[in-house]
Amino acid sequence: MSKRIVGPEIEKLIQLLAKVPGLGPRSARRAALHLIKKKEQLLGPLTVAMGDALEKVRVCSRCGNIDTVDPCMICSDPRRDAATIILVEDVSDLWALERAGAMNAQFHVLGGTLSPLDGVGPDDLNIRGLVSRVAEGGVTEVIIAVNATVEGQTTAHYVTDQLADMNVKITRLAHGVPVGGELDYLDEGTLTAALRSRTAF
Amino acid sequence: MSKRIVGPEIEKLIQLLAKVPGLGPRSARRAALHLIKKKEQLLGPLTVAMGDALEKVRVCSRCGNIDTVDPCMICSDPRRDAATIILVEDVSDLWALERAGAMNAQFHVLGGTLSPLDGVGPDDLNIRGLVSRVAEGGVTEVIIAVNATVEGQTTAHYVTDQLADMNVKITRLAHGVPVGGELDYLDEGTLTAALRSRTAF
Repeated sequence: MSKRIVGPEIEKLIQLLAKVPGLGPRSARRAALHLIKKKEQLLGPLTVAMGDALEKVRVCSRCGNIDTVDPCMICSDPRRDAATIILVEDVSDLWALERAGAMNAQFHVLGGTLSPLDGVGPDDLNIRGLVSRVAEGGVTEVIIAVNATVEGQTTAHYVTDQLADMNVKITRLAHGVPVGGELDYLDEGTLTAALRSRTAF
Repeated sequence: MSKRIVGPEIEKLIQLLAKVPGLGPRSARRAALHLIKKKEQLLGPLTVAMGDALEKVRVCSRCGNIDTVDPCMICSDPRRDAATIILVEDVSDLWALERAGAMNAQFHVLGGTLSPLDGVGPDDLNIRGLVSRVAEGGVTEVIIAVNATVEGQTTAHYVTDQLADMNVKITRLAHGVPVGGELDYLDEGTLTAALRSRTAF
C-alpha cells in the first residue's frame, strides 16, 4: 500500500502471501483480510499446520519425494512393486501420477531438468541417486515420465545414457491424443505422434 | 488426495490452504509444494507473520477497521479531517478508497449490509457506533460509500434515517462512467445515471 494505513504486521503478511503461487498482490490483500476475519476457523489452524510442515517435512533421501518421514511413505510401502521406478521431474508430477493411480510402482524425483543456460547440470539433479538405485539390483524397468518439453526430453536422453550399460528396460510415456481432447485444438506434433502410434481398433 | 501418499501434516496444510480465497483444491497443492520447497525464504517467514497477525490484529473499537492498535492508525491520526466520516461496508472498501488517496477523512466500517433473508439486522452491523460518533459532535459530513447493490442501497437508506434528526450533511458517491471505461460495455443503469448527472464541459 502506498500510504501506511495498516500496521507493519498486516503489511508483512500481505507481502508474503503475494509470493504464494496462485495469489498476486491484489488477491493477497483479500486473502489476508479473510484470514484475519476467520481468526479461529482458518488463520489459527493454518498457522499451526504451517508450523508443523516447517518442522516435520523433509526430502526423502532415497527418491527425492517430500514427506514427513524418511524414507517416504511410497519408498517404505512393501506393497509397491520395487522392480519399477517412475522417473519424474518434480514432486507435483509424482502427485499427479499417484492421483491417476494407474501404477503401484516406486518413484524417483529428479528435482528439475538439465538447463545449461540456467546453470543446471547433471550434478544439480538427483540422477546419481537413480543410477545407484538401479545398480543395487532388483529394478527391471525405469519409466521416464518427464515433461514433453525440450528440457525434459534432453534430460531423458542424458539419463538414458547413464543407464545404458545396466541391465534395465527403459521406457517412456506414450504420446497421443489426451482422453476427452478434441483434435481441432491439438498441435501438429501431438497429432503426428498419435497417428504414428495408432493401435488396432 | 484419494490415496494416502503424503503424511497427514501435508494433507492438512493443503486442505487449509484450499480455504484461502483465491486458492482452490488444485492451486492449494501447488502452493503447499512451493511453500515446502521455499522453507527458509517463504514458509518460515509466512508462519511467523501469520502468528504475529493472530496475536496482534484487532478490530478498532471506534470505526471497525482492522489494525494492530486500537484505536486504529486512521482513527488516531491527528492530520486527518475528523469532521468527515466515510461509511463503507467492509475493510477491503476502506483499503480501496485509501489506495485512491482522494480524501484525508475518517472512516466507519459497517461490517456488511442489511440482509433480512440472511438474518442480518441493524444490530448486527456497526450502525449504533456511527450514530454515537456523530452524536459526539464535530462531524459535519457522512459520505455513504457502500456498494451500488440493492443490499448496499437499502442499508444506505436505513443509515440515512438514523442520522436524519442530526445536524450532519449526508452525501453519497457519484454514479457515472468509470474512468477509462468504454460506453459499449456499460449497463443501462450506469449510462442513465451518467447522462442525468452530466456536467459542463
